Amino acid sequence: MTSDLKNKNLPIIENAVKALHERRFFAQYPENPMPDIYGETADKEGRERYKQHLNNKFTELVHDNAENWAGQEESPYEQQPLGIKYPYFSAETLVSRADDAFHQWRKVKPVDRAAILVESLERMKERFFEIAYATMHTTGQAYMMSFQASGPHAADRALEAIAAGYEEQTRFPENMEWEKPMGKYNLKLNKSWRAVPKGIGLVIGCSTFPTWNTVPGMYASLVTGNPVIVKPHPKAVLPIAIVVAEVQKVLVENGLNPYICQLGVDADDHLITKELAENPKVKLIDYTGGTEFGNYVESLPGKVTFTEKTGVNSIILDSVQDIDKVAQNLAFSLSLYSGQMCTAPQNFFVPAAGVKVGDEMMPYDEVVKKLADAVTGLVNNPKAGPHILGAIQNPATSERVKEAASVKGKEVLSTCDFSNPMFENARTCTPVIYEVDATEKESFSRELFGPIALVIKTKDTDQSIELAKEMAMNYGAISCGAYTTNEDTKEKIMDEMSLAGTPVSFNLTGGIYVNQNAAFSDFHVTGGNPAGNASFTNPEFVIKRFTWVGFREPVAG
Amino acid sequence: MTSDLKNKNLPIIENAVKALHERRFFAQYPENPMPDIYGETADKEGRERYKQHLNNKFTELVHDNAENWAGQEESPYEQQPLGIKYPYFSAETLVSRADDAFHQWRKVKPVDRAAILVESLERMKERFFEIAYATMHTTGQAYMMSFQASGPHAADRALEAIAAGYEEQTRFPENMEWEKPMGKYNLKLNKSWRAVPKGIGLVIGCSTFPTWNTVPGMYASLVTGNPVIVKPHPKAVLPIAIVVAEVQKVLVENGLNPYICQLGVDADDHLITKELAENPKVKLIDYTGGTEFGNYVESLPGKVTFTEKTGVNSIILDSVQDIDKVAQNLAFSLSLYSGQMCTAPQNFFVPAAGVKVGDEMMPYDEVVKKLADAVTGLVNNPKAGPHILGAIQNPATSERVKEAASVKGKEVLSTCDFSNPMFENARTCTPVIYEVDATEKESFSRELFGPIALVIKTKDTDQSIELAKEMAMNYGAISCGAYTTNEDTKEKIMDEMSLAGTPVSFNLTGGIYVNQNAAFSDFHVTGGNPAGNASFTNPEFVIKRFTWVGFREPVAG
Repeated sequence: MTSDLKNKNLPIIENAVKALHERRFFAQYPENPMPDIYGETADKEGRERYKQHLNNKFTELVHDNAENWAGQEESPYEQQPLGIKYPYFSAETLVSRADDAFHQWRKVKPVDRAAILVESLERMKERFFEIAYATMHTTGQAYMMSFQASGPHAADRALEAIAAGYEEQTRFPENMEWEKPMGKYNLKLNKSWRAVPKGIGLVIGCSTFPTWNTVPGMYASLVTGNPVIVKPHPKAVLPIAIVVAEVQKVLVENGLNPYICQLGVDADDHLITKELAENPKVKLIDYTGGTEFGNYVESLPGKVTFTEKTGVNSIILDSVQDIDKVAQNLAFSLSLYSGQMCTAPQNFFVPAAGVKVGDEMMPYDEVVKKLADAVTGLVNNPKAGPHILGAIQNPATSERVKEAASVKGKEVLSTCDFSNPMFENARTCTPVIYEVDATEKESFSRELFGPIALVIKTKDTDQSIELAKEMAMNYGAISCGAYTTNEDTKEKIMDEMSLAGTPVSFNLTGGIYVNQNAAFSDFHVTGGNPAGNASFTNPEFVIKRFTWVGFREPVAG
Repeated sequence: MTSDLKNKNLPIIENAVKALHERRFFAQYPENPMPDIYGETADKEGRERYKQHLNNKFTELVHDNAENWAGQEESPYEQQPLGIKYPYFSAETLVSRADDAFHQWRKVKPVDRAAILVESLERMKERFFEIAYATMHTTGQAYMMSFQASGPHAADRALEAIAAGYEEQTRFPENMEWEKPMGKYNLKLNKSWRAVPKGIGLVIGCSTFPTWNTVPGMYASLVTGNPVIVKPHPKAVLPIAIVVAEVQKVLVENGLNPYICQLGVDADDHLITKELAENPKVKLIDYTGGTEFGNYVESLPGKVTFTEKTGVNSIILDSVQDIDKVAQNLAFSLSLYSGQMCTAPQNFFVPAAGVKVGDEMMPYDEVVKKLADAVTGLVNNPKAGPHILGAIQNPATSERVKEAASVKGKEVLSTCDFSNPMFENARTCTPVIYEVDATEKESFSRELFGPIALVIKTKDTDQSIELAKEMAMNYGAISCGAYTTNEDTKEKIMDEMSLAGTPVSFNLTGGIYVNQNAAFSDFHVTGGNPAGNASFTNPEFVIKRFTWVGFREPVAG
């Protein structure tokens, strides 16, 4: 590679490393799709480029000798197939090519790998709008979330992984003269160390966040010298296919094997994930998705795994200043992307005696009504509803919402078909809320993916905390929101939820939500409960991808 | 705790962190048992203190309500029981006490934990000689190794773990104001993070290095806030019992629960290791010992494990400057502590065409004879032999050496009883050497623990490298020695062995041996092959013992 690329991108990497440790606000890629940032024509051109993919072969990836062409995506907004076909290669071919590429990539220095990978993000940036439309029409996310989550936020998470991997690989000297005083003489050894990559990395994507949840593992494996096979969810390929294509282009421009980073799509008639995962040459697996398959991935012998599975996220309501602001904030969190986020709240714990509002107690029923009314108000607001709810990615989610009545409990808010003025065929539904008692544990001891909220009536806040902790420890949790004006209660919640490996957002109102977390500041998932064994991006997320090996030899006398 | 302890020990910790990153020579605890370092009477007093333990109850540990007293140690030098009895508690009692202590210890700040733990090492230093005699008479190590390995080297490895744990826990800010520009206003959050310990740590010791292999995991778990139960090998308790007792004393002096660090000995009629390991509250397990039990430990669900199992270590002989110096160096490595080291070489790969010595080829048979002669010379040197060989810890090892004739191959050097002038009843045997062909893979594809060397005749050095790599990848390796004067061959060995996660020492002669490795510079075990999944002390060794959990709340307006 040219040293130009290193000179150009090293400052970005160094800034990112600094940001990782300061954990202040930092974004390399602006989240606002404003024309004065991204250009007047960027949105229009992105939409057009997206449309050109429809009913076509995706030929940007290296596709020589493609064994077939496959694709099964359909738009939750149109409920129509996208008709895009991707080059298909068998698991055997993908692994064999990755293994060849490994021996080239592992010899590229960490700083050069990082510079090449950052360059691919800079190219990705040029395609944020195209990726946004691709994300809308695969995941059902609304436009703004599609742009932010799949574009700048994903690119920042990728940069975070590159920065962490670069830092960890350069934390120890490449070589050193070791000199030990032995009394009459000094013993001198030349020592050197190498960060040796583990082998082929497999990254298994999910259907709802095809780039955001894929790029951290993908870039973490790549920066540490491992070739990667990205296996997207068959319903959400295009957004990540564009990213992989950009990586391949930068690799080729720098004289490197494009198979260092491959896209491995499922065939239309069979899934290839298990074949890839079980191949002995695959050493690293990143996975986002359901718990059952995640547990299978974690159980595979001889692999280092990084999983994000599902969880049961809680809201603990104890005491608030302004109940309306709280209800609005929670209604937004519950409705955002129709609850199809791993960070969306599900279990709302409310004490039977109610919630302290300012200096007075608001009765339990009134609190529940505030929450239901806030959801109704938001959903019925034509300027907000469609942009928040988006569409439902998977028909099974709509079914789950409609069948939520089977939950043991009282319906507080029923779902309704929701019509999106821009997409009359969109698959939609609005949030439902059920009330259950704290004793009916089986009703709230599992994830109900989608816009389904359970209000759980507890004896008191201590029981709320105990149950939220128990749910997180036994079934996993990725987020927790708590509302309390009491410092002792706050400390108790932090202490108990920390033992359940669950981050807590306190007293959120206004423009910040429990579902959101920021690259370079918030660790995403902790790895400390059954919701997943990895965290974006703590040091563990990168150092498990390579091995420190040392060499030594006496200094020539 | 008093801030005095922090003021006193923080400089030691900071020096150690610096040393970890520079990887130059560094030792907090001098390895030389010289009177002018440790005092004129230190050795004599240590021996007397050791003798006072014999046939007595060990009462220095907190032993209220001991459920029994147990002990099965015997001296490999005397072949007599030591008669020391330790307080016995059931697994249930140990875990329940550790769980109580957890909630106190986890709330002590990392810096204070580190200062307390360093203080325990300073106390351990006062007992290095006593620990040395305890080590001799449990493991069979000779005096010098007993002193160095169980005393200063172990204490330095412990300090390394403390330093690494302290550094990792303080690498991110405790709290930070996060301010995100939103256009019309700035969004401000107070954020904080906690390094949350995982839970109870179990450290399972081995019979040959009772402190050296135990303290890294023990101190790594402790510094990261986890209470620890040390389960020593029933034949090697006293050295580590002294260390645990010193930790308990420092804890009590600082107003802390001594059960933060407990010794859990086996009962005389049953072993408690599995009961401890399988207890759901035990979250971390450090293990040193045989592969079979190590694989069981690694397979336990819901545990983070750190293992050092067994390996098949190789020597690759290609080309040398001075064959006599090389043979002497290798003879020493093979004989040191009668090969009862995890780093001892076993498989010596020698090309059929011989080894290049200076500019000439020395025939294969002559190379083998040089090695055998060097061993014979060393063993028969009364000033060296007894101090290098020590005694055999386990009668099964002596049997293995005597039965090594069953190895398919030709005997080059047979074992003999070796009499130690200081201990006429010592259990001893001298190294054996067998020759096998490279095709007879089953003969050299397993660890033959003890002073057993196999010379394997290969086609050429390429085959030597290939076989050394294959052995390491399939059966594990902790060390590798290579002799070559050719730079390309050297690079090839580094590259291939790095893929097998095996450190390589090149061209060692004189006073440095492949078996030795130095705290703060050499990573011990890489975690990258079946010999073990952990490494002393890379960042992974400490960060897997805690979880980063974040908290956030809007800044009050």
